[in-house]
Amino acid sequence: MKDKVKPKTLPGFMELLPKDQILFNKMKETIQKSYEKYGFSPLNTPIVESADVILAKAGGETEKQIYKLKKGDNNLALRFDLTVPLAKYVTQYYDKLSFPFKRYQIGKVYRGEKAQRGRYREFYQCDIDIIGDGELSIINDAEMPAVIYNTFKELGFDKFTICINNRKILNGLFSSLNLENQTSDILRTIDKIEKIGSTAVKRELSQIIQDDKVEKIMEFIKISGSNDEKIQALENMKIEDELFIEGLKELKEVVKFIRIFEVPEENFNIDLTIARGLDYYTGTVYETFLDEYRQFGSICSGGRYDNLAGYYTERKMPGVGISIGLTRLFFLLIDNGIISSENESISDVLIISMTEDYEYCAKIETKLRNKGIKVQSNIENQKIAKKFKYADKMKFKYVIIIGDDEVKNNVVTLKNMITGEQKTIDIENIEKAF
Amino acid sequence: MKDKVKPKTLPGFMELLPKDQILFNKMKETIQKSYEKYGFSPLNTPIVESADVILAKAGGETEKQIYKLKKGDNNLALRFDLTVPLAKYVTQYYDKLSFPFKRYQIGKVYRGEKAQRGRYREFYQCDIDIIGDGELSIINDAEMPAVIYNTFKELGFDKFTICINNRKILNGLFSSLNLENQTSDILRTIDKIEKIGSTAVKRELSQIIQDDKVEKIMEFIKISGSNDEKIQALENMKIEDELFIEGLKELKEVVKFIRIFEVPEENFNIDLTIARGLDYYTGTVYETFLDEYRQFGSICSGGRYDNLAGYYTERKMPGVGISIGLTRLFFLLIDNGIISSENESISDVLIISMTEDYEYCAKIETKLRNKGIKVQSNIENQKIAKKFKYADKMKFKYVIIIGDDEVKNNVVTLKNMITGEQKTIDIENIEKAF
Repeated sequence: MKDKVKPKTLPGFMELLPKDQILFNKMKETIQKSYEKYGFSPLNTPIVESADVILAKAGGETEKQIYKLKKGDNNLALRFDLTVPLAKYVTQYYDKLSFPFKRYQIGKVYRGEKAQRGRYREFYQCDIDIIGDGELSIINDAEMPAVIYNTFKELGFDKFTICINNRKILNGLFSSLNLENQTSDILRTIDKIEKIGSTAVKRELSQIIQDDKVEKIMEFIKISGSNDEKIQALENMKIEDELFIEGLKELKEVVKFIRIFEVPEENFNIDLTIARGLDYYTGTVYETFLDEYRQFGSICSGGRYDNLAGYYTERKMPGVGISIGLTRLFFLLIDNGIISSENESISDVLIISMTEDYEYCAKIETKLRNKGIKVQSNIENQKIAKKFKYADKMKFKYVIIIGDDEVKNNVVTLKNMITGEQKTIDIENIEKAF
Repeated sequence: MKDKVKPKTLPGFMELLPKDQILFNKMKETIQKSYEKYGFSPLNTPIVESADVILAKAGGETEKQIYKLKKGDNNLALRFDLTVPLAKYVTQYYDKLSFPFKRYQIGKVYRGEKAQRGRYREFYQCDIDIIGDGELSIINDAEMPAVIYNTFKELGFDKFTICINNRKILNGLFSSLNLENQTSDILRTIDKIEKIGSTAVKRELSQIIQDDKVEKIMEFIKISGSNDEKIQALENMKIEDELFIEGLKELKEVVKFIRIFEVPEENFNIDLTIARGLDYYTGTVYETFLDEYRQFGSICSGGRYDNLAGYYTERKMPGVGISIGLTRLFFLLIDNGIISSENESISDVLIISMTEDYEYCAKIETKLRNKGIKVQSNIENQKIAKKFKYADKMKFKYVIIIGDDEVKNNVVTLKNMITGEQKTIDIENIEKAF
């Protein structure tokens, strides 16, 4: 006889018990519905692509993480994000699409990162992007925080902050100080401000740039107050750089429309220190934090980019988009007890038959399903105690009990498993009992 | 400058335009809702598994089709069906699950088949299974046709037939004729009956078995009439084989409960010729056909198996399940003009602003979204004609037009794009207009 294979799931690959899967799917569907409300159409690209398509953008660390495979003579790869497939898609089907093209994609992506707690190698990204043909109005940049706000509200959160910045303001500031060539070093230092504090940041900056310039940068990153006060402070800096002026104008327009889109003042915040990587984003950038769990890092990020598909086409397609890393977020929420699952089962009600005549049971089941009620029955050849143990373990809210008396009188006994209350109900009106 | 990479999608990998993706997702969601109504809980196992887990069951043709990959020292593989991951899952989490365990899984699977029209290498399977611990009531076998019936009705089909058989009847018949060792040859010949006709089948059978036995088999496969007449004819054969008698008893019970589950007589049919492969299924088997498109082959198949996870565990877990190959079905339906997409866009309504003041436009948009209406706006710097071309191409049912007059009077102009009708509406009651 052949040896048994040990059943196991790979580390870094999330696999949930039914109760958690129900909760995960509910979150995924909430995000999907929210995206659709804002007019984003679904997209579902293959998980496996030609390796050259996937590798067109990747480089360095990302490239090492990519899952590559061969089938016959073909070099294939698993997608590592949903942006590369989007760039491929809009280039490939350019003639058949209408622009601005709004799409969402919710799907699994693959990165062979070092496996550690809370890090996943297979994980869901939930992306939206708006792609323009040649140009794209700045108002779209204000729609993103509106979608983020609506989505996290629908997910049941109240205390979260969408942080907004504009890369042009940062770059314009550096350019006005003739620091263009040191941008990445400076940004890397500024990025540490939450970790090491502003004094340490100032000290580090002094090691690479002149003191008067450090002063100007510190003045900039220390800007605080309300959103309007920050905009005012930026104007007061009187920086005569074209890019800075453009970025500030964009930021003002974005803030104006965020308010028209009814995102409350306490849920968005101009944060002049966020930069979101160095190469990809060119204008507005977003990060989102749960106020009480700042340590989770950003749970929804994105921004504006000038050129989506430069590695596939000469055609200039600017865009703006955001992404929720759902697998990681779900793990953090469960692991910190912020959410927890209520039901082991998808069904509203379980029918338990005490008799061995299951006809009546099957009739009741059909009747409930015809009314759209999610139901399942335990018609197995088991002891009654075992059937009730099953009901308890699966945390059904309602159990319908059917014995000889019920069959004879054309009724059922309905037990509320939370209150323990039990009553006899006529089957004609059974759906009203829930 | 780096050369551009040609954007392309691999052959055998479905990728849809938005209008078709909307339709595909609608079908997928309909199937999901139907499965949930019958009490099946969601499951979402990884697409990538350890190669030995995937290969435990595979052999022969299947093994050649598997996508294998390596990451570091690990041999990995993409799942080729959803049954192997289910077997792994119930073995691995046995202690945490309640049995009977009802789950659905809707997900992509991978088979490196020869690429040809309508054959996919990445495709969706939509599976349900009920897994017992040691034993599983035959009534579960009747629930499958009930789910199939409900699902295809919800998908909008009326004329389809769920064909049912029981492998024990076939095997019992062969055993009563001492033909156990020729089972596969005989079944392979019987399987051709639709293609080559019964005379040819009889001739082929005569070449491998004795004439009196051929007569008995032909008597069996020619059984016709109503479901009850077929059962009667099987009883009239008076076959004194234990397996045959058990199979017939099971079939009768399944038919009885299919009726209690309110599957109409015209939608299910005992078909004594279907066998569904040789090794895996051990009792009830199902195939489903669209009556007017019999040439599509079965669009939903499955059956009862004695032992789900024999290659992982000694524990006996019988089950019954079905699967819809959604990607192939969708292709067939679209390709034959049986379904077609209505909207290029997910939104109910498009807002077109004729003025450059987009504030009012954004206000209207927010108002509609607060009422749960899916809406998008074209606020791009485009000529009005181009904006209307966009509306036409995307097939929006409604367009809201905003010009200076509308802003001044606090109204909008609503155009029904199908009838061409246009009216002015107060924004306070705007949601009632749809």
